[in-house]
Amino acid sequence: MATINLNYNKLAAGYLFPEIRRRTEAFLEENSGVEVMMLGVGDTTEPLTPAIIKGMHDAVDALGNADTYTGYGKERGMPELREALSERYDERGVLVKPSEIFISDGAKPDSANIQTIFGPADIVAVQDPAYPVYVDSNVIAGRTGGFNEKTGKYEGIVYMPCTEENGFFPEVPDQKVDLIYICSPNNPTGAVATVDQLSMLVDYARRNKAVIIFDAAYAAYVSDPNLPRSIYEIDGSKECAIEISSFSKDTGFTGVRLGWTVVPYDVIVKDTSPGEIRSAWNRRMDTFFNEAPNVSQAGGLAALSGQGREECQGLVDYYMRNAKVIKGGLDDMGMVTFGGVNAPYIWLRTPDGMGSWDFFNKMLSEAHVVGTPGVGFGPSGEGYFRLSAFGHTENIEKAVDSIRKNLRL
Amino acid sequence: MATINLNYNKLAAGYLFPEIRRRTEAFLEENSGVEVMMLGVGDTTEPLTPAIIKGMHDAVDALGNADTYTGYGKERGMPELREALSERYDERGVLVKPSEIFISDGAKPDSANIQTIFGPADIVAVQDPAYPVYVDSNVIAGRTGGFNEKTGKYEGIVYMPCTEENGFFPEVPDQKVDLIYICSPNNPTGAVATVDQLSMLVDYARRNKAVIIFDAAYAAYVSDPNLPRSIYEIDGSKECAIEISSFSKDTGFTGVRLGWTVVPYDVIVKDTSPGEIRSAWNRRMDTFFNEAPNVSQAGGLAALSGQGREECQGLVDYYMRNAKVIKGGLDDMGMVTFGGVNAPYIWLRTPDGMGSWDFFNKMLSEAHVVGTPGVGFGPSGEGYFRLSAFGHTENIEKAVDSIRKNLRL
Repeated sequence: MATINLNYNKLAAGYLFPEIRRRTEAFLEENSGVEVMMLGVGDTTEPLTPAIIKGMHDAVDALGNADTYTGYGKERGMPELREALSERYDERGVLVKPSEIFISDGAKPDSANIQTIFGPADIVAVQDPAYPVYVDSNVIAGRTGGFNEKTGKYEGIVYMPCTEENGFFPEVPDQKVDLIYICSPNNPTGAVATVDQLSMLVDYARRNKAVIIFDAAYAAYVSDPNLPRSIYEIDGSKECAIEISSFSKDTGFTGVRLGWTVVPYDVIVKDTSPGEIRSAWNRRMDTFFNEAPNVSQAGGLAALSGQGREECQGLVDYYMRNAKVIKGGLDDMGMVTFGGVNAPYIWLRTPDGMGSWDFFNKMLSEAHVVGTPGVGFGPSGEGYFRLSAFGHTENIEKAVDSIRKNLRL
Repeated sequence: MATINLNYNKLAAGYLFPEIRRRTEAFLEENSGVEVMMLGVGDTTEPLTPAIIKGMHDAVDALGNADTYTGYGKERGMPELREALSERYDERGVLVKPSEIFISDGAKPDSANIQTIFGPADIVAVQDPAYPVYVDSNVIAGRTGGFNEKTGKYEGIVYMPCTEENGFFPEVPDQKVDLIYICSPNNPTGAVATVDQLSMLVDYARRNKAVIIFDAAYAAYVSDPNLPRSIYEIDGSKECAIEISSFSKDTGFTGVRLGWTVVPYDVIVKDTSPGEIRSAWNRRMDTFFNEAPNVSQAGGLAALSGQGREECQGLVDYYMRNAKVIKGGLDDMGMVTFGGVNAPYIWLRTPDGMGSWDFFNKMLSEAHVVGTPGVGFGPSGEGYFRLSAFGHTENIEKAVDSIRKNLRL
């Protein structure tokens, strides 16, 4: 008699974004004709740029021609793409070999799947708040106990609070942990970890042979030259850090699907030699994946060309102007905001200590704006709210106007 | 101190196809200038058809325009695509609801990942020989013991021999098993399960509340109207079967990446109600996946249009003519072949009981043809060899000629 993976029953509720969608649709059903402005999911809205469109068209044409058609992709992804990424790391003074880069269909699948190469009893630590996938994937994998409704935490996970007091970067854990998920620029708080902050964490990881899983999906949004864009800008990190990144947020590939993960040869854990962890990920990708889509990889390669990079910088600048509009508008209203300077998210303290979901309902019903309740990212997110700078500027301006006019503070 | 998932150490050797690649490259290094003909991996070679190229170009154009750009895909995939697939099932008299269809980036990832929604102690049964991903994914997930070099089997897996005697379809297991992987048309043997054969298996699964994981990636190659293309053509199967399928082999999407999995509401296992297994897969996809690439989905939709289907039938016919060339050529030599009639694979009994890898080396060194050693698919594949009908006809003809002229029998 087959059985279900009982860990699914531990999951606290629907995945955050479907839940937001359900609530939004319910509101729209009851309020037909109302226009709702979406500042919730961090979904790109601006068209792909000309260089990328050309790259993708060319790839499609190649598939339509017997002389240039290609089938299964190369293991770990297109060599040219891995080389181009390696060169871009090199510009930041970081050595990442092409053979340490694994092209994937996005940072989300990689950040969910990366835990599968580690032991089932490894202790997981997450920033609190954090992108829900880190926790949920480990719940499903069985590394946690049940969800505790009182604390808003899963038993067995170490939550590292990111608060106003610590500048939204956690202290190193006061217990031994094995896998540490860090996202910088941070989703949802918009905070960017400094060299000093990351160095402390790398020291901890090396001392304890822990592995840092570093989500750099928003790296392109860092404009401050003193802030790191990659964990590998930190000395010693190649022994202890895996970096996951994405073409979604700076190239507009949320629906096109393309990302990559760096697993350095030097990463070691208990009883392993250099290269073994990388080999495990390689073997996982060989078995559970069949390479990223060829048209998406061609688009990614075009995005890394001179023209592509210039155009994509234009996309980033566009969204960051939106971030300024949101932050400026809310600050003018006297609200307390964080992030939004080197990251496309604005993290907002709810007024009067209002609960995150209550504030979600208030924003939706009064201002017709959908944002993301902070508590959906973890218990330390309670009392906060995330607004996303992704969107057409005119819609962002309209949303901010509506908040200013209609939100009853 | 982090640990590695020790199940990786249990894996017997490199994944089969990388191993073939390594041996082929080694041969080429020692024999530069020799042209090797690839009949090994089941990789498509013919260009995408005009309707599909147009669908993909249009999708790329839409992404380049602010009014038509779209970001993240819809949960479970494009509704139009799921509806078109549902309609195609309907033509075979099969009711599959669009909400039971989950669009993915291919049958390989789905067939590797499907086990994650089931209990860790569930007993896995596989056809022997079988596509290695079924076994390897369960090894990595910890449902097996170690690899036994003597038997060529992993401890804890139930191997169901598929032999000449049973027409390459297994008897129902003589012990209780929980998850049963079945592939029809079969990779590697080219056998297609009949209604009677599948009915016996469905009866077994219902009696034992086992789940059949039915890999239908080659369904389009069935031309005999009496042979089922879907497990759901069998009465009672919706209670006990999950079907995984692909656009790779009939549409040419091996590199484009698109597939789907059907998880019916009616599938039940121990202590679950109807809908729970489907919900677990839905939740898994929400957490570990972020929808199939939009351009690939647009291509898939075009492939299901009237013109697309006609053109794709042309691709299938093309590869099946190749199959006839291979099978005819080998039969003329007095070799014993199976499959190749309703499936794009020819399963060849090696001469004089030669071992599969020895025959691989012989074919490579004498005829310069790369095929796939049967034992790579499981111990009952020992003494057999798979040839693939995917390839340009002129290359297939050249390979068959070379086998006839150069293989020393």
